[in-house]
Amino acid sequence: MPAPCVIGVDVGGTKVLACDVDAGLTVHHRALRRSPAPSSDVLLDTILSAIVEVRDAAERELLAVGIGIPSMIDQRTGVPEFTAHLPLTGVPFRDVMAERLGVPVFVGNDATLATLVEHRFGAARGVPDAVMLTMGTGIGGGLVMDGRLVHGAVGAAGEPGHMVVDVDGPPCVCGSVGCLETLASGTALAREERGSRAAAHDSELARAAASGREITGALVTELAHDGDRAARDVMALIGMRLGLGIANLVNLLNPSVVVVGGGMVAAGELLLEPARTVVRERALPPSRDVVRIVPARFGEEAGMLGAALFALDGSGAAAAAA
Amino acid sequence: MPAPCVIGVDVGGTKVLACDVDAGLTVHHRALRRSPAPSSDVLLDTILSAIVEVRDAAERELLAVGIGIPSMIDQRTGVPEFTAHLPLTGVPFRDVMAERLGVPVFVGNDATLATLVEHRFGAARGVPDAVMLTMGTGIGGGLVMDGRLVHGAVGAAGEPGHMVVDVDGPPCVCGSVGCLETLASGTALAREERGSRAAAHDSELARAAASGREITGALVTELAHDGDRAARDVMALIGMRLGLGIANLVNLLNPSVVVVGGGMVAAGELLLEPARTVVRERALPPSRDVVRIVPARFGEEAGMLGAALFALDGSGAAAAAA
Repeated sequence: MPAPCVIGVDVGGTKVLACDVDAGLTVHHRALRRSPAPSSDVLLDTILSAIVEVRDAAERELLAVGIGIPSMIDQRTGVPEFTAHLPLTGVPFRDVMAERLGVPVFVGNDATLATLVEHRFGAARGVPDAVMLTMGTGIGGGLVMDGRLVHGAVGAAGEPGHMVVDVDGPPCVCGSVGCLETLASGTALAREERGSRAAAHDSELARAAASGREITGALVTELAHDGDRAARDVMALIGMRLGLGIANLVNLLNPSVVVVGGGMVAAGELLLEPARTVVRERALPPSRDVVRIVPARFGEEAGMLGAALFALDGSGAAAAAA
Repeated sequence: MPAPCVIGVDVGGTKVLACDVDAGLTVHHRALRRSPAPSSDVLLDTILSAIVEVRDAAERELLAVGIGIPSMIDQRTGVPEFTAHLPLTGVPFRDVMAERLGVPVFVGNDATLATLVEHRFGAARGVPDAVMLTMGTGIGGGLVMDGRLVHGAVGAAGEPGHMVVDVDGPPCVCGSVGCLETLASGTALAREERGSRAAAHDSELARAAASGREITGALVTELAHDGDRAARDVMALIGMRLGLGIANLVNLLNPSVVVVGGGMVAAGELLLEPARTVVRERALPPSRDVVRIVPARFGEEAGMLGAALFALDGSGAAAAAA
């Protein structure tokens, strides 16, 4: 009889990824749903259908399901209390999913779960004190202190993207202004790109925009890698602002490693080197001198794998296998 | 034969406080030195003389000495790596003191040690996830997560005062700009008070300044308590900025309690209520809804008592007594 499994699910703004893993976090089956989410009912059905597809393919006992969502979650209730990009705020998400699936369900913040997997198996493996930032449309994150994931009082710790760094800055989806996310995310990149394009007409970036191509983080990254000056300048600006946020975290938490993940880390050193320069200039010794700023090991599957790991930990399967 | 003791010392910018305590943190003798510190040698002698005075008065076996200083300290070496207000940067402080005293010496950041004592015996007692900010000339702090003091990779965690919240803000003693400390400390209070005084000629604050009195945080606090409008306005402004910093910490760490200590907390609700309002407006649920923002229990002896507790913990005396 095959060993039992857990399922991990990552619910993003535009897609749902699910997989089953064994106790060693090896993935066996995957399911993907493109998910415009017009209502919470439709989104819940979409998530369930991905989970059922994987469960049916696995043909093994299902111990638990872990689900990562881009939300502040109250772990006492399993209710997302704030989700900027999904219709889940106030929905009794954990209880509904557990009832529909008939197994224990563990729900966590997607970026915090990505931090869990980077700490256990990735770029922060074996590091007692680490911080992660995930840079996509917004900025998420997670903290590991003294070898353990930081949950906080009700499980909602780990939102470096909503740290105000510019008290007079742009408005943020969270209702505040000048959050790190407004200055250093993919959304900020697109905004700055428009300004940069106006300043540098003779660039590939300007030509791409003039020809009607949509200016995405991926395109800016590609052009920056190709050496386009305007694209590189925008990426360096975003990297410097990222460095400002990291300097705050370095002064506050004195981590050994800061892991940068999410789609934007495809820019690699074009993003990370300006960030390191700012940390050297603005953070305090000895913390600034011991910290390494590195890219994540896991890419777009980090949230899904972290959710699976959260379910393994929660169901006791990881401990049993270790 | 009397039980052995430890000595705790708080080294501030203008004075040195020392005391001996038993394993239950009861204070038996105190020593005070007013300390203009023109050089590291003079300062070391001043600190030693305070310790020796207490040691001689105690007439008991001395197990260890704990010393709190306003500095980022590398716990691997016991060397202060950054001290804005004392001539100790780069001095092998822990080793020198241990050699001169002949007992183990434990050195920590003063505000982090104040956090330790507030967590063990004060306003954050029994709270697993707490943050402290100490508001004096600058802003210090400390973090407790999952019931334990957060040390970070080399023991330098806990500098909320050097979190940039205004990227275009005033220059900071740390070399950065727009740190929380530049906006919400006693130094910021004095600066804002000058602006406020210009705007409100018909105030007690303006009259006090015109009569040549030095405008200190204590005076502004006293006038604010007396109902002077200009003094209250300045205090409310500082409180709102404090709230901005606390909102960042709430989003990042989801603490149950934020303890505000240091000299400025004498302003009480005049400072804390504006801070709470900003946290309600700018931090995210569920974290903002569970956090309590409270004044410290221990006043100007918090650093000294924390240093004694650090020495008790380090020497194993606290565990033996508990």
